[in-house]
Amino acid sequence: MFVVDTMKKLAVIGCTGSIGRQTLEVVCSLSDRFKVIGLAGGSNITLLKKQVNKFKPRFVYYRDKKANTLFENYEFLPKEEMASHPDVDMVVIATPGGFGLEPTLAAVKAGKKIALANKESLVAAGEIIISEAKKNGAYILPVDSEHSAIWQCLEGEKAPPARIILTASGGPFRNYTATQLAEVTVEQALKHPTWRMGKKVTIDSATLMNKGMEVIEVNRLFNIPIEKISILIHPQSIIHSFVEFIDGSTKAQLAWPDMRLPIQYALTYPERMLNIQLPRLDWNKISQLDFEQLNMDAFPCLKLAIEAGKRGGTMPAVLCAADEVAVDLFLSNRIGFGDIANLIQQLLKQHEALFTAQPTMDDIQTADAWTRDSAIRLVLGEKHAS
Amino acid sequence: MFVVDTMKKLAVIGCTGSIGRQTLEVVCSLSDRFKVIGLAGGSNITLLKKQVNKFKPRFVYYRDKKANTLFENYEFLPKEEMASHPDVDMVVIATPGGFGLEPTLAAVKAGKKIALANKESLVAAGEIIISEAKKNGAYILPVDSEHSAIWQCLEGEKAPPARIILTASGGPFRNYTATQLAEVTVEQALKHPTWRMGKKVTIDSATLMNKGMEVIEVNRLFNIPIEKISILIHPQSIIHSFVEFIDGSTKAQLAWPDMRLPIQYALTYPERMLNIQLPRLDWNKISQLDFEQLNMDAFPCLKLAIEAGKRGGTMPAVLCAADEVAVDLFLSNRIGFGDIANLIQQLLKQHEALFTAQPTMDDIQTADAWTRDSAIRLVLGEKHAS
Repeated sequence: MFVVDTMKKLAVIGCTGSIGRQTLEVVCSLSDRFKVIGLAGGSNITLLKKQVNKFKPRFVYYRDKKANTLFENYEFLPKEEMASHPDVDMVVIATPGGFGLEPTLAAVKAGKKIALANKESLVAAGEIIISEAKKNGAYILPVDSEHSAIWQCLEGEKAPPARIILTASGGPFRNYTATQLAEVTVEQALKHPTWRMGKKVTIDSATLMNKGMEVIEVNRLFNIPIEKISILIHPQSIIHSFVEFIDGSTKAQLAWPDMRLPIQYALTYPERMLNIQLPRLDWNKISQLDFEQLNMDAFPCLKLAIEAGKRGGTMPAVLCAADEVAVDLFLSNRIGFGDIANLIQQLLKQHEALFTAQPTMDDIQTADAWTRDSAIRLVLGEKHAS
Repeated sequence: MFVVDTMKKLAVIGCTGSIGRQTLEVVCSLSDRFKVIGLAGGSNITLLKKQVNKFKPRFVYYRDKKANTLFENYEFLPKEEMASHPDVDMVVIATPGGFGLEPTLAAVKAGKKIALANKESLVAAGEIIISEAKKNGAYILPVDSEHSAIWQCLEGEKAPPARIILTASGGPFRNYTATQLAEVTVEQALKHPTWRMGKKVTIDSATLMNKGMEVIEVNRLFNIPIEKISILIHPQSIIHSFVEFIDGSTKAQLAWPDMRLPIQYALTYPERMLNIQLPRLDWNKISQLDFEQLNMDAFPCLKLAIEAGKRGGTMPAVLCAADEVAVDLFLSNRIGFGDIANLIQQLLKQHEALFTAQPTMDDIQTADAWTRDSAIRLVLGEKHAS
């Protein structure tokens, strides 16, 4: 299935975000092997225009139709159609949050190779996406650094692993007390110690919701029981995860924290390609790698995610939507850092009455919409009451 | 080629040494998959007798023929014949030093699967052994922890690595000055901080000759240029080596320092098997992994080995024989710790006049014999002169 293409035709959905921009950097470095034929941007029309001028794709998508005068020479194509277009060999889903779900599903149904950076689609609708991928011969190639690490460590192995140890930088607040955490400001939360990422992912890293979603993703992608996945704090973000096998041997994948490597690995798989832009580990400068046990109690979002992942059904979709709204509210200073977990917890609890164990895509979308509505109502209600 | 055998028939050459004993421990744990049909011991007849009583092999070898009354019910078979016997599926070469060369060669010519713990055969005659293995369909499965790590990290990879980083505990003297090294006693040198091993290997670990030989082995086993192999001190011996790929991604294999894991991996490859005797890494107890650059100047044996490895031909055979004699002389208190490197250096220098670039096995054996003779003459001469 993985014939080495001489020139892969790419569509990048979410091209103006952090992962999208880094994907295009990788493509520039490997321009003899990749041709961008579709670019789907969000609200940053100025950057999209620059990218379109540079890569000259066939298809362009932009949210605001009024921008069409800027892209007169290009064919406008909705994201889902771009992700499933017959001329596209590989789709990069780099758009954050709920926006990733529909193009992912379209690409999966069209049997594409999908470099998937969007966490939420695999968390909210992982079981449906994985089963549709199998049915349609699609490949989901993870772009997250941890999942790429696990994938690389599993290559060539004949049996399922005994245990996965997801590393976590622990975010900026790994040694904070509950009281300190309650007072965290937006500015503090947006400063991640090791990774350059989008705002949503950075906040999710600070609450460890991100790590909780990664646990669910590991489960969906590699079919590994959640009970066999643990988390270890590794502040330097150099070891991107460990895989332990039944004989007690452990493999790890290491790299300088730079998303371009997992992006490139997904793009070039099963090959590896030389890219002088990518940093190498310099062992003259690494004298120590540190590990700490995680204080689960300080990070309620992580617990909520793991519980939702184990429960399955519509719960992970509620988790994703609730987190998206809560992070938005925090970023606009309407709720505190500690309220993110509280709000998600309340919504998960309220959703019990509506829970569906074997959801269809419609059920997932209904749960998503219900969560967003309920979240706003909850917060407005609280504001009213206070 | 690697059909999963329901019951592999093993011959263990060097069964009473450290690796031999640990091999038999592994076999005990996996007794439904392995049957020991040959045991070849050295001078420890008491232990050999115990092992023979326990495993009831068909074939037995012992150096001292006078021991034959002890093994009346077993068929005596010379090591080389045992290693190449048609009924043997896999040969474990666990005998140290020059004793390993002939059984390894016999097994290679017979197209066996060979779990190779003996360093010297691959160093002294690596090119011949690898070419004979290819010709005869033999597989050499490394048992050394570093080579097993590299092998595990290369599994499933499609292209040669960019770089190998061999980890080294650094032995007991990694922070010694040249003056301190000159005064090292046999007792001090036999205390290795992390590994339980035979005497020869323990001294080779203290001089780092061991690491130098490992560089040559990596080159011979995996066809990786010596220039692409570097060494990094890692005192805890938990990461057993790193493999860096052309995209900048690095893989590592980790395990508690216990030779039974690389032994088992070689025995069970391409499978991994559950063995509750093998320790797991406990991340509650690992808070830090340390790395240091190696001070090459303090370890002349390492430099000599790397030079001999690059030179090839008969040089590595001289290196091995010279080291074996030098370590023996040190262990019997006839030369000092610092003299080990001096003696090897002199012999390598003297051998220039006799150097053969494309040696046959005869040339290698001649170089070996010449080295042992010359070493004794050099040391006796020096003693005379002093």
